[in-house]
Amino acid sequence: MNQDYIKPDEWSLIEEGFNKDRVKSSESLFSIGNGAMGQRANFEEQYSGPSFQGSYIGGVYYPDKTRVGWWKNGYPEYFAKVLNAPNWIGINVFVNEQPLDLNTCKKVDGFQRELNMKEGWYQRRFVATMAEGAQLEVRATRFLSLDIDEVGAIKYEVTSLNGDVDIKFIPYLDSGITNEDTNWDDKFWNTTNVFSDGQQAFIEAHTMKTNFATCTFMESKLICDGKTVAGKSSADTTDVQIGMEHEVHLEKGKSAVLYKFGGYTVSTNHKPSELVNAAKRLLKEAVSIGFEGLLAKQAQAWADIWDMSDIAIEGDIKAQQGIRFNIFQLNQTYLGKDSRLNIGPKGFTGEKYGGSTYWDTEAYCIPFYMATKDQQVARKLLKYRYNHLEKAIENAQKLGFTNGAALYPMVTMNGEECHNEWEITFEEIHRNGAIAFAIYNYYRYTGDYTYIPEMGLEVLIGISRFWHQRASFSKDKNKYVILGVTGPNEYENNVNNNWYTNYLAKWCINYTITQLQKVKEGYPEDYQRIIGQTKLTEAETALWEEVAQGMYFPYSEEYQIFLQQDGFLDKELITVADLDKSQRPINQKWSWDRILRSPYIKQADTLQGFYLFEDHFTTEELERHFDFYEPFTVHESSLSPCVHSIQAAKLDRMEQAYTFYLRTSRLDLDDYNKEVEEGLHITSMAGTWMSIVEGFGGMRIADDKLSFAPRIPKQWSAYSFKINFRNRILRIKVTDKETSFELTGTEEMSIRFNGKRLALKPGETTFA
Amino acid sequence: MNQDYIKPDEWSLIEEGFNKDRVKSSESLFSIGNGAMGQRANFEEQYSGPSFQGSYIGGVYYPDKTRVGWWKNGYPEYFAKVLNAPNWIGINVFVNEQPLDLNTCKKVDGFQRELNMKEGWYQRRFVATMAEGAQLEVRATRFLSLDIDEVGAIKYEVTSLNGDVDIKFIPYLDSGITNEDTNWDDKFWNTTNVFSDGQQAFIEAHTMKTNFATCTFMESKLICDGKTVAGKSSADTTDVQIGMEHEVHLEKGKSAVLYKFGGYTVSTNHKPSELVNAAKRLLKEAVSIGFEGLLAKQAQAWADIWDMSDIAIEGDIKAQQGIRFNIFQLNQTYLGKDSRLNIGPKGFTGEKYGGSTYWDTEAYCIPFYMATKDQQVARKLLKYRYNHLEKAIENAQKLGFTNGAALYPMVTMNGEECHNEWEITFEEIHRNGAIAFAIYNYYRYTGDYTYIPEMGLEVLIGISRFWHQRASFSKDKNKYVILGVTGPNEYENNVNNNWYTNYLAKWCINYTITQLQKVKEGYPEDYQRIIGQTKLTEAETALWEEVAQGMYFPYSEEYQIFLQQDGFLDKELITVADLDKSQRPINQKWSWDRILRSPYIKQADTLQGFYLFEDHFTTEELERHFDFYEPFTVHESSLSPCVHSIQAAKLDRMEQAYTFYLRTSRLDLDDYNKEVEEGLHITSMAGTWMSIVEGFGGMRIADDKLSFAPRIPKQWSAYSFKINFRNRILRIKVTDKETSFELTGTEEMSIRFNGKRLALKPGETTFA
Repeated sequence: MNQDYIKPDEWSLIEEGFNKDRVKSSESLFSIGNGAMGQRANFEEQYSGPSFQGSYIGGVYYPDKTRVGWWKNGYPEYFAKVLNAPNWIGINVFVNEQPLDLNTCKKVDGFQRELNMKEGWYQRRFVATMAEGAQLEVRATRFLSLDIDEVGAIKYEVTSLNGDVDIKFIPYLDSGITNEDTNWDDKFWNTTNVFSDGQQAFIEAHTMKTNFATCTFMESKLICDGKTVAGKSSADTTDVQIGMEHEVHLEKGKSAVLYKFGGYTVSTNHKPSELVNAAKRLLKEAVSIGFEGLLAKQAQAWADIWDMSDIAIEGDIKAQQGIRFNIFQLNQTYLGKDSRLNIGPKGFTGEKYGGSTYWDTEAYCIPFYMATKDQQVARKLLKYRYNHLEKAIENAQKLGFTNGAALYPMVTMNGEECHNEWEITFEEIHRNGAIAFAIYNYYRYTGDYTYIPEMGLEVLIGISRFWHQRASFSKDKNKYVILGVTGPNEYENNVNNNWYTNYLAKWCINYTITQLQKVKEGYPEDYQRIIGQTKLTEAETALWEEVAQGMYFPYSEEYQIFLQQDGFLDKELITVADLDKSQRPINQKWSWDRILRSPYIKQADTLQGFYLFEDHFTTEELERHFDFYEPFTVHESSLSPCVHSIQAAKLDRMEQAYTFYLRTSRLDLDDYNKEVEEGLHITSMAGTWMSIVEGFGGMRIADDKLSFAPRIPKQWSAYSFKINFRNRILRIKVTDKETSFELTGTEEMSIRFNGKRLALKPGETTFA
Repeated sequence: MNQDYIKPDEWSLIEEGFNKDRVKSSESLFSIGNGAMGQRANFEEQYSGPSFQGSYIGGVYYPDKTRVGWWKNGYPEYFAKVLNAPNWIGINVFVNEQPLDLNTCKKVDGFQRELNMKEGWYQRRFVATMAEGAQLEVRATRFLSLDIDEVGAIKYEVTSLNGDVDIKFIPYLDSGITNEDTNWDDKFWNTTNVFSDGQQAFIEAHTMKTNFATCTFMESKLICDGKTVAGKSSADTTDVQIGMEHEVHLEKGKSAVLYKFGGYTVSTNHKPSELVNAAKRLLKEAVSIGFEGLLAKQAQAWADIWDMSDIAIEGDIKAQQGIRFNIFQLNQTYLGKDSRLNIGPKGFTGEKYGGSTYWDTEAYCIPFYMATKDQQVARKLLKYRYNHLEKAIENAQKLGFTNGAALYPMVTMNGEECHNEWEITFEEIHRNGAIAFAIYNYYRYTGDYTYIPEMGLEVLIGISRFWHQRASFSKDKNKYVILGVTGPNEYENNVNNNWYTNYLAKWCINYTITQLQKVKEGYPEDYQRIIGQTKLTEAETALWEEVAQGMYFPYSEEYQIFLQQDGFLDKELITVADLDKSQRPINQKWSWDRILRSPYIKQADTLQGFYLFEDHFTTEELERHFDFYEPFTVHESSLSPCVHSIQAAKLDRMEQAYTFYLRTSRLDLDDYNKEVEEGLHITSMAGTWMSIVEGFGGMRIADDKLSFAPRIPKQWSAYSFKINFRNRILRIKVTDKETSFELTGTEEMSIRFNGKRLALKPGETTFA
């Protein structure tokens, strides 16, 4: 399972040795991003071996016509896909007229990749021996600037080791790119203008259908022997490609350094007519700061990020590398600058899962961003859903709901549903609950109530209307039931009374009703506006309450547990431990019907409910449910192990918690699911953060106060993290002997430590 | 709902008046077939309006690469499609150089179609006024010969009404055809040879992938004023088309008659190298018999079919037309000559549903063929499944079953599954039960036990092994359960303990065990062979029995009924009568989740079980279940109304039975589902036959004897039908006063009439 080729290191990912079979995996692992765009770790120079090219621009997508075998009413017309954008990183290199290509050259020595997470850059080094014998040492460094987030920079150094050579560098742009993920082999990009201007080149292209206009740009400079070697427009310019040729004669032992600055201007941020001018301004700025200058700023920007979001672990380098990799990738994917963007399951590292937004954002990512950024970042993520409320109402209408009921999409880019499996699209409706929970969680954590009267309450009303209409009354049970759903455990489909879904539905209604009252009292103008818009009446909310109060929950008297769904106990309850290992992962080995009727759980949704609503249950109840469901859980969802880690820690089962922690934190680094080449599991990385902060650190919010109950895995000697709680910065360090708190700011703060009150003084370290 | 453009007539379908909107529907309704090939009622001459071209050859299919949105393990790689075959019927007609085209000509008068079911031919007449004023009367007659089933014949008569005209006829062949139903716009046919020889023309083409080689052939002859006008090879010959030009100057009032003979020779019946020679022999034979000679033979062949399978109804012409249309189409589709063929849901009338064989054959069609043909025909249909047993075992293996367990495919052409919706492909497993039931039913009806030791028992063992493995033990219920299935009511998916499926599973196991004992005692050599092949042990059958004996059946004490599935009573039980009509048909109006959680039933599978196993239940039990399920049944499956008609008749609810009868018998004629243009519902037509013979006639087999309990709808004065029971031919006539039986042969026969024994003497009419 463990590819084990990434060297353990506190701050970097390091790969040593060239292995063609690892190229695609490493392209994912060494991906770089700056929140606005991303780039897989593709080689700059030509590479003819298997590779998965990927350059992505946040928010630029294509509505790929849906592919389906057997159409069902209600399916969306298209699947919104994050698109592979024009390539700006390419640098073709010719050595004595022969192309440099690691797939075909005679020998590759000293190949090394480093992803420096501390400073936010990626470097690749190697010595290539060309067919005719020329040996060249190459060092390519690149990063996507956090400061100027439309720009990336590359420094490509070549040293001739064993003789004089003629080298030609052709840095180029290419909009003739395709998506690996395409339903109908559509053409996604229409290129309208390809031109150069001095040492600069530009490609104007827009996406088909969505018509996002982009200008991909570059400027290059070759330095050899302290002199600049000017480039000239390449003869190979085509309708979709343009390059600049820099030729140089390189003596043995000498180096040539090509600098390339490039990136995109996009119509989401500029007037379409201004894209080229904006690109020229950006190039002028980047070139004037220079590669080294930009790199210094990059290191500073990452230092600022790390200062707030780092988790340091002492005594366990693999665990340390894992958590930093997770935090690094989350920050590469989303920085909260733009409320039109969200956090795609693969971020900017691959195409799989298309779309951008899943319930992952609300259930997993928001806690991380709340604690490590300004609260505006989480608020932006909430606002994203508020902005999509109308579309969620339309989506519900398509499925037969009325009166402003809202069903948020399972997968979306612009608020419209774009997934089309009936058991998920129509039935995995718990996503609505996660969106409501995030509103509650945001207020609980930040104390910022204003979001609710301003926006959140309307979302809550739409969601409660949905739950009210989606539930139905069972005369037989004399209870309200929710039939035909898929819970977070997607290894059961179209089940009745999924406990998690029913519980969320009841909670959503109750919470909405409470908020209606609070807004009515505290924000009467907002209340009037909302009631006016939604036409909500007390008669209607009375019906909601009837559903909430009468909600049915499947329960086993024998096991004293809530049942995942009505039929769960009819299954043959053979634990995962008793399942032959050759059968796993079951999603690769078994047909779907077999998975569905098995007791095996992709991610335990009853436990997910216990995680969200921990306060509603005793520790004994948690333990009983954990002991019942954990043995059937195969964790074939990347979102699964983190919750189990947190709950195992709470139950003081630190070995188990630690195992789950490693699984979540090194899921991609160790490629547990043998699929890392498709991209990284970005959203579950926030779960990794939770498993330390909430799991080991035992951080909770109770009665408006922070609370901690720290534990430490025996493999670690210490760990520490910082959080922003209501604009107060608190650093927590846990060792195997004690816990210390370091509060910044000017005011005291009262927290709970293992259930007892603890007063923290600003500027002091408090030991507990 | 009722298109109402087909004139009521006892023996024909007649359409009058030209309506472009009806062209595609009429192309379906007026389809012709001869069991080996079929032809939609496309115009011979060019038609530029909306049309659905369709020529089909039995058994010639293409494995179209599967299309699916989200792949699931176990899905088949392809969907086998009945293919549109090269067009042999085309005759382009030019009048003074202008093409005759009913879509563009100035005027069409006196348009009439007739499908003469009595004699098996199709005729179309019209007077066309060309743009420049020439008026032509056309009468085109065609049929597919039952005697020479590779040949069809066309007589195309043109009379000039208002002046002299130059007419050019170009009868042609065309292999440049496409399928309407294609997943990836593949090219299905590869044409290798296009040539003419005297008055004959040939196209050799083979299907891609499956490599069925065909020769499409024709010979044409134009007669004008008693003289033959020879044709010459058309200048427009292309890679995929060849025509013969016959030119004639036609004086006002004179007629020209073009005869065209054509058809296919196929590598399934000839050596590939012999296809052209075989085609020449066929043409020689057909031409020597001549159009009128072949037509006379056609009328005789149909007279023989009708003699045995006609149902005559007096006093209700629409009901009469309906049943004859159903019987006619069944015989056009399948005549039982070739055990490689089967009965596709759309026969030779359209492309929808691809494949050829569904459980429809066993559940609906076999009773019709047993009673109206020699028993060898039904035996061939059973043998078809025996021939596919190995593939059914492989299919089960793909889904994780072992030890020779067999799961027959939901849809197949060659024994391999080719459907890919998990809820159907993997879960609609009741099809296995229908295949076992057909074995039982065949023996019950024909008394021919030999099929079971020779072939059937191996099929039964494979099926019982499947049920044994597919059931699982519920500790909670202390019973065996079958989880995650879809019953015949496809408006519930992935349910637990579908009563129909559980009941069939139990019955299959018990029946197999009984047959094992019978074969052991009566056919010891077969038994040894089968045990040797299957390695079946008594220990294994003991496990089967445990499952059968411990099978769980969901039951409601409150309603005293078996529940369709575990969760049925949790649904909101609002009857169809209380459902707003605007919501129907729900499969067009509702999203899939809404259908699934509604109580509405596509076809009532509990009642289907009561139909198959009528003897296991009392009439009171039937009535209780009918009264419970019928009100929720929307009959959106063409297979639904016939069973309800039979049960309503048994319950003496003749008005209801009659309503259901009309719905099943005129489903296509009156286009209830607004989809007849896609093709006819062939397999459900056998259900129509059952609804008269078993429903109104009350025919059953009990204790090896025929039994009748006739009723008659008040709209009818009499009805009569013939059946072949164990090679004895019996004619039954039911009037509103009495029932009479007419037995042929030489021996007496004892039957039951309304529960009492009745002795029938050969050659006499017995009144009861």
